[in-house]
Amino acid sequence: MTGEFEWIERLRGRFPAIGDDCAVVELGADRLLLATDALVGGVDFTADTLLTDVGWNAVVANVSDVAAMGGHPRWLLAAVSAPDGTDLDALADGLSEGADAHGCALVGGDLSSTAGPLVVSVAVVGTVSGPPGPVRRGGARPGDDIWVTGPLGGPAAAGYAGRRHLARVEAGNEARRAGATAMIDISDGLAADLGHLARESGVGIALDTVPLASGATLEQAMHGGDEYELVYCGWVGVTGAIRIGTCTADRAQRTLAGEPFATTGHEHRF
Amino acid sequence: MTGEFEWIERLRGRFPAIGDDCAVVELGADRLLLATDALVGGVDFTADTLLTDVGWNAVVANVSDVAAMGGHPRWLLAAVSAPDGTDLDALADGLSEGADAHGCALVGGDLSSTAGPLVVSVAVVGTVSGPPGPVRRGGARPGDDIWVTGPLGGPAAAGYAGRRHLARVEAGNEARRAGATAMIDISDGLAADLGHLARESGVGIALDTVPLASGATLEQAMHGGDEYELVYCGWVGVTGAIRIGTCTADRAQRTLAGEPFATTGHEHRF
Repeated sequence: MTGEFEWIERLRGRFPAIGDDCAVVELGADRLLLATDALVGGVDFTADTLLTDVGWNAVVANVSDVAAMGGHPRWLLAAVSAPDGTDLDALADGLSEGADAHGCALVGGDLSSTAGPLVVSVAVVGTVSGPPGPVRRGGARPGDDIWVTGPLGGPAAAGYAGRRHLARVEAGNEARRAGATAMIDISDGLAADLGHLARESGVGIALDTVPLASGATLEQAMHGGDEYELVYCGWVGVTGAIRIGTCTADRAQRTLAGEPFATTGHEHRF
Repeated sequence: MTGEFEWIERLRGRFPAIGDDCAVVELGADRLLLATDALVGGVDFTADTLLTDVGWNAVVANVSDVAAMGGHPRWLLAAVSAPDGTDLDALADGLSEGADAHGCALVGGDLSSTAGPLVVSVAVVGTVSGPPGPVRRGGARPGDDIWVTGPLGGPAAAGYAGRRHLARVEAGNEARRAGATAMIDISDGLAADLGHLARESGVGIALDTVPLASGATLEQAMHGGDEYELVYCGWVGVTGAIRIGTCTADRAQRTLAGEPFATTGHEHRF
């Protein structure tokens, strides 16, 4: 299977606009943030996952991409491919609750039958009320501090019970207004996502410490997926944020307390 | 399996904004048109369908929804769930060619692996440069003429070879500017889609004639899916449009040359 990162790279070769958590497009005086994320049965959730939580998480995955640009989610679309017998009311409940919790509205949908697993594809349209404009991945510079919006590893440590998250919309907006130079949400693990940010920015990463959620191991904090905390670079810590390190001029550097760490982690798999 | 129409009805109960081909949302002085449509392997295409055509058709299904509101497609997002060995380059070619052909840009994507069939979910953001504003399904009144933008039944008659269509973006915009009172694209068959329009508008339908594409039967013209011609109501025939009948005050009327016709047709199935 071609990995998601490889597919994104291929798409970027063909479609130069693709790269950040969201596409940024101009419409008159407004800037729109556009993103899509799908959850697939057997890959992103199991037969045991409540469909209300599948709906919620499909919303959060998208809203978090808007948060990571410092924007506000506004409208959602949901295309659902469902096998016979799927409890569509539970799925709609989860989508609805997730949208409400993040101050946005589900405004359109599509339903197809499928002989395969349930697939819930959500797309989001967000807006940025700047200046400053949306925060991209590629703006970090050597000397910038690195911050996370909360302790990490909680979802990996908690397993299923910890899966219903809130995207960090307010923290992302606060970071943008505070002059964050680069930002990304942690969906594939801190190490992997910070690696994307560092590569796009052309900087190295020197972490001092990683704040652990209750019960989480360092491995879970570094490589656990589905976090939905944000990691950003800049000089100002927003409400609740924790400084974890510094951007360096050595592009190849990926260290934690002086020791190299791997940037490979969770890639939308169990 | 719950049918698509039933799901849309459920969603409309929960999310009042859902109803037309696209959601219409206001952003400052602009109006955005938002829609999503997914193509599912084994339902919307077979193992024999070229992946370039799957990509193209996923774009057209979405762009056609924007055309049916009298808008212009601007940006596309594609969430792909692909089994091992899928030729993603061919799929990306089709998405790219479809976007180019309709003057819009693919700006974001997501890729997941799946143990099931290929699912290609596309979302579209369009704009309307009015006045007049977007054309909805519910504005037809008794006495309005009914028009189609071309002869029907061609895709059903041609089978696979006829599957690569162009959405009727210019015709939809011309109809909007000419004061169309209601409009819908023909994705589930003329009878079914005109039935939606009539129900939303609270009018009956008296068709005089249905123009047949070369080689098509009346059955194919009335019930063939994946047409992507537009049907609209109003008093002005736009370029290439053919007048097929009149809206009536008898909400229950569905007649062709005085004989009742059924409004059930293709529902995104073979």
